[in-house]
Amino acid sequence: MREVFQKELAEVQGRLVEIAESVTHIIKDATEAFTTSNALLAERAIGMAESNESKALALDELVIRILSRQSPVARDLRILVSALRISASLERMGALAGHIAAIARYRFPGSAIPASLVGTFEEMGRLDVELASKVTELLRNTNVDQAREIQAQDERIDELHRHVFDVVLADDWKENAMFTVDVTLASRYHERFADHVVDISSKVSYLTTGEWHEGE
Amino acid sequence: MREVFQKELAEVQGRLVEIAESVTHIIKDATEAFTTSNALLAERAIGMAESNESKALALDELVIRILSRQSPVARDLRILVSALRISASLERMGALAGHIAAIARYRFPGSAIPASLVGTFEEMGRLDVELASKVTELLRNTNVDQAREIQAQDERIDELHRHVFDVVLADDWKENAMFTVDVTLASRYHERFADHVVDISSKVSYLTTGEWHEGE
Repeated sequence: MREVFQKELAEVQGRLVEIAESVTHIIKDATEAFTTSNALLAERAIGMAESNESKALALDELVIRILSRQSPVARDLRILVSALRISASLERMGALAGHIAAIARYRFPGSAIPASLVGTFEEMGRLDVELASKVTELLRNTNVDQAREIQAQDERIDELHRHVFDVVLADDWKENAMFTVDVTLASRYHERFADHVVDISSKVSYLTTGEWHEGE
Repeated sequence: MREVFQKELAEVQGRLVEIAESVTHIIKDATEAFTTSNALLAERAIGMAESNESKALALDELVIRILSRQSPVARDLRILVSALRISASLERMGALAGHIAAIARYRFPGSAIPASLVGTFEEMGRLDVELASKVTELLRNTNVDQAREIQAQDERIDELHRHVFDVVLADDWKENAMFTVDVTLASRYHERFADHVVDISSKVSYLTTGEWHEGE
């Protein structure tokens, strides 16, 4: 029984890694589509975000079947409940990346960002891609050192998010309202994407270090 | 054993109702703070959103303890897994309402919206408060008729959300970038709030009508 359960847990882990890999592809295509106005890449990211959702739902069903068959307790139960939450975060990250791609597609052949903010969004995009790739590694090998790097990169994204507002709200911002709307939303999506990475890494650290409080 | 379990399920349901009630208070204060520039109400909403988060986390711990002690299967297991997801949605709804309040507080004593959009945000706010109140009733009595009304109101909110963009992107929009940023984000928060209500109501309908597919 224990052996079957370990195999099932490995299957859950493998699927989480696979979904995280797909999220990495989505955010990569989405941020490139957004900063270079590439409609084809935008389409691809949007399509991948849809199939990412199905993969997350299928994983949830697998976790529920395991819960039902194995009735795990203590740490094993925690791992499976965490898998459900991590799957929800990964699904949401795919959707957020899809939203960034959708803005790019909507404005095509025009750009969704003015020249003055291209550098900022390139950096945000690069950081989000790195974060997605780190979270994939974290899920694969549960190396908690990665969790610290993730924290630092999230702080940098928050900084860039505030910078976007500083630029947009400065007196010399003369761009039209369309640019203002697009950069506001895209910046918010990037920031939320990184928040989910931090949430996932906290859950993995918690489970790995065993520092989990059983509540009252 | 069965009797204990039924009591525990009732406790979970009661806590979900309580959290949904608190979310209703938060969105009520937040939308009033936002449309009337009331810093005190904004403070209150932000404070309530924080304690709402703790309530949701405490409920998750309760659900995990029940899973561990009772090892439920089939529909009972589905109910508990759904409770975890509903709790996550309610927590997020409180946070989104808190964000709306935070914009109002940040702009105080100024307004976060120009006069031309006050009516739109009043309607969005009223609809979100009604949705929060309907989802509370739905969790209390699992009356599936409510689910249909929820669907219709969500569509109206999507319409208002698109209207905000139409106004902001029209040629005669002469407001400054601050208003553009604030109404873009606040409208998005209202729309996401309603999305979560729809998610919760789908889960409750699913469980109540028994139309649940066990997956492959």
